[in-house]
Amino acid sequence: MQGIWLTHPAATFNETARTSALNRQGQLTKPPGALGKLEDIAVQFAAFQGVEKPNLQRIHISIFAADHGVAEENVSLFPQAVTAEMVRNFARGGAAISVLAQHLNAELEVINLGTVSVVEPLKNVRDERIAAGSANFAKTAAMTESQCQQALQAGRNAALRAQKNGAQLFIGGEMGIANTTSASAIACALLAESPQNLAGRGTGLDAAGVSHKAQIIAAALALHALDAQQPKEVLRCLGGFEIAGLAGAYIAAAQLGLPVLVDGFISSVAALVAVRINPSVRDWLLFAHTSAEAGHQRVLTALNAEALLQLGMRLGEGSGAAVAVPLIQLACTLHSGMATFAEAGVSEQH
Amino acid sequence: MQGIWLTHPAATFNETARTSALNRQGQLTKPPGALGKLEDIAVQFAAFQGVEKPNLQRIHISIFAADHGVAEENVSLFPQAVTAEMVRNFARGGAAISVLAQHLNAELEVINLGTVSVVEPLKNVRDERIAAGSANFAKTAAMTESQCQQALQAGRNAALRAQKNGAQLFIGGEMGIANTTSASAIACALLAESPQNLAGRGTGLDAAGVSHKAQIIAAALALHALDAQQPKEVLRCLGGFEIAGLAGAYIAAAQLGLPVLVDGFISSVAALVAVRINPSVRDWLLFAHTSAEAGHQRVLTALNAEALLQLGMRLGEGSGAAVAVPLIQLACTLHSGMATFAEAGVSEQH
Repeated sequence: MQGIWLTHPAATFNETARTSALNRQGQLTKPPGALGKLEDIAVQFAAFQGVEKPNLQRIHISIFAADHGVAEENVSLFPQAVTAEMVRNFARGGAAISVLAQHLNAELEVINLGTVSVVEPLKNVRDERIAAGSANFAKTAAMTESQCQQALQAGRNAALRAQKNGAQLFIGGEMGIANTTSASAIACALLAESPQNLAGRGTGLDAAGVSHKAQIIAAALALHALDAQQPKEVLRCLGGFEIAGLAGAYIAAAQLGLPVLVDGFISSVAALVAVRINPSVRDWLLFAHTSAEAGHQRVLTALNAEALLQLGMRLGEGSGAAVAVPLIQLACTLHSGMATFAEAGVSEQH
Repeated sequence: MQGIWLTHPAATFNETARTSALNRQGQLTKPPGALGKLEDIAVQFAAFQGVEKPNLQRIHISIFAADHGVAEENVSLFPQAVTAEMVRNFARGGAAISVLAQHLNAELEVINLGTVSVVEPLKNVRDERIAAGSANFAKTAAMTESQCQQALQAGRNAALRAQKNGAQLFIGGEMGIANTTSASAIACALLAESPQNLAGRGTGLDAAGVSHKAQIIAAALALHALDAQQPKEVLRCLGGFEIAGLAGAYIAAAQLGLPVLVDGFISSVAALVAVRINPSVRDWLLFAHTSAEAGHQRVLTALNAEALLQLGMRLGEGSGAAVAVPLIQLACTLHSGMATFAEAGVSEQH
């Protein structure tokens, strides 16, 4: 019965609060709709939080890190050691997501689900290594059934910690050399797309590198012969521990009624896995940005998602999601702080 | 010799600081280019501020308000009284831009360049009324030569105040019932576009309303027979006092070496006027967002500008620019706060 939680329904919205917030939007001193997407966000957060005037102060960021066996196929510009080195950089405050978390006063934790080498104990880093990296999916399944379950559960535990700490928003980040290869393979399997369409530059491959990466993915898809209707099996064969961790976290957050701000390509693929496992999760997901990675727009389209930002970012770590946080905060602040026509003595339209 | 300042060259950048910042970007612990536009912004602010590690704390917002004679042609859904009512709402903190300014800890001032009715003295509102609204440009020139000059100078004075207060960023906002009609007319004259292409919904006109607005503009363009090579004359005949104020502020800010974050459609048209009067101004302008107003993208294209945000906003007041401020702050914070590969002991690419 392990993993039975995965398909439990997501929390329901507070429709009364949504209606109150919608009414309030119509009374604020601006033409109806003039704040565009910021109005939708405010109303959505009212429904999430069950209050007419939502706010966003407490943000939880969990970064899942793991190595990928497929890195030995020469699919990344960076050596595999970088995964563990970046875990240290996250902990010491030098990485992009560390700087952003500090600026946003967000809670940041790193969950090491399987770097190749052991990382010494570090502040805010949880050692939950499942194995010394996933297996090379070009040759065999990336995870065993039990490893995949363990990674999903690690994600769930992160969402539970976030809720316990009073988080109002969950952001997942990832770090793992070669994980755009893994994410692209998963997206191809779930969307029946060819690797030529979904494989991208990752950390900066040239055209020949992208072509090689697409070939590795194509061969792996042929090897595993997966069924798009079995998303957990797709995840197990092609995923990394960190992608499974993200998917588990998204599912659990939705079940807990904790909204999720999804980052870039890899996170969106994890979101796609989560929604395919449990469609009710979708309502609790917001999408922060469209990244520069080739396949991201395709994955967003499959999720019927429109991202908030288009800044050409492609870093991962949860960085794009963190950059979008101020927009949500401003949306809530405008919604709660603006005067109504009646309060301000401003004439309404003819 | 009044107005001779308009064509003085803009300040020059600090190229040494730009080069240092570019070098630093290449050493930060991320793949080159992975922060997308945020990297460009950080390097640009390094050049603006003359330091390798820029920051953005002090933001100045000047809202120019004025009424438009063309409002009598039935081109807006809202009564003209709203301009003065919104001046009060700005001052009392209930308007969108007031809420945003408070959240950003920005300096906010309102410059009344010509509401139809006198507004009682209010905190942070400067009474610089040139006339009881501009003249109806469907019948005659909107401003006299001297009124236009006075409005441009009022804008310049705002930029001078901002600099004196140590501002690191200038945001201009506007309020004036019927001013999308004025801005659309100016854009048509400067870009040789037809009103059918550039007239938009403003505060929310339906298709018939937009069509009527386009007809009013077309007739006015025929009446004034303007030359696109004479941008000041285009401004004088079709502009509002607040659009001239914005144009003057942008020109002066660039001359003072104070970067400008341009808001939506009306502000971008003022930026177009400013750049046509003085092309050197362009280098100091950043564009915050692409609004939902029909003609905005066309104006941005003419300015060779790519806006940071696309949120479907169409409120004016400087609100879209204020919403984009956190992105610039995060860009600077990331640039200044991230560790280099050497500092973090992270391996560089193969």
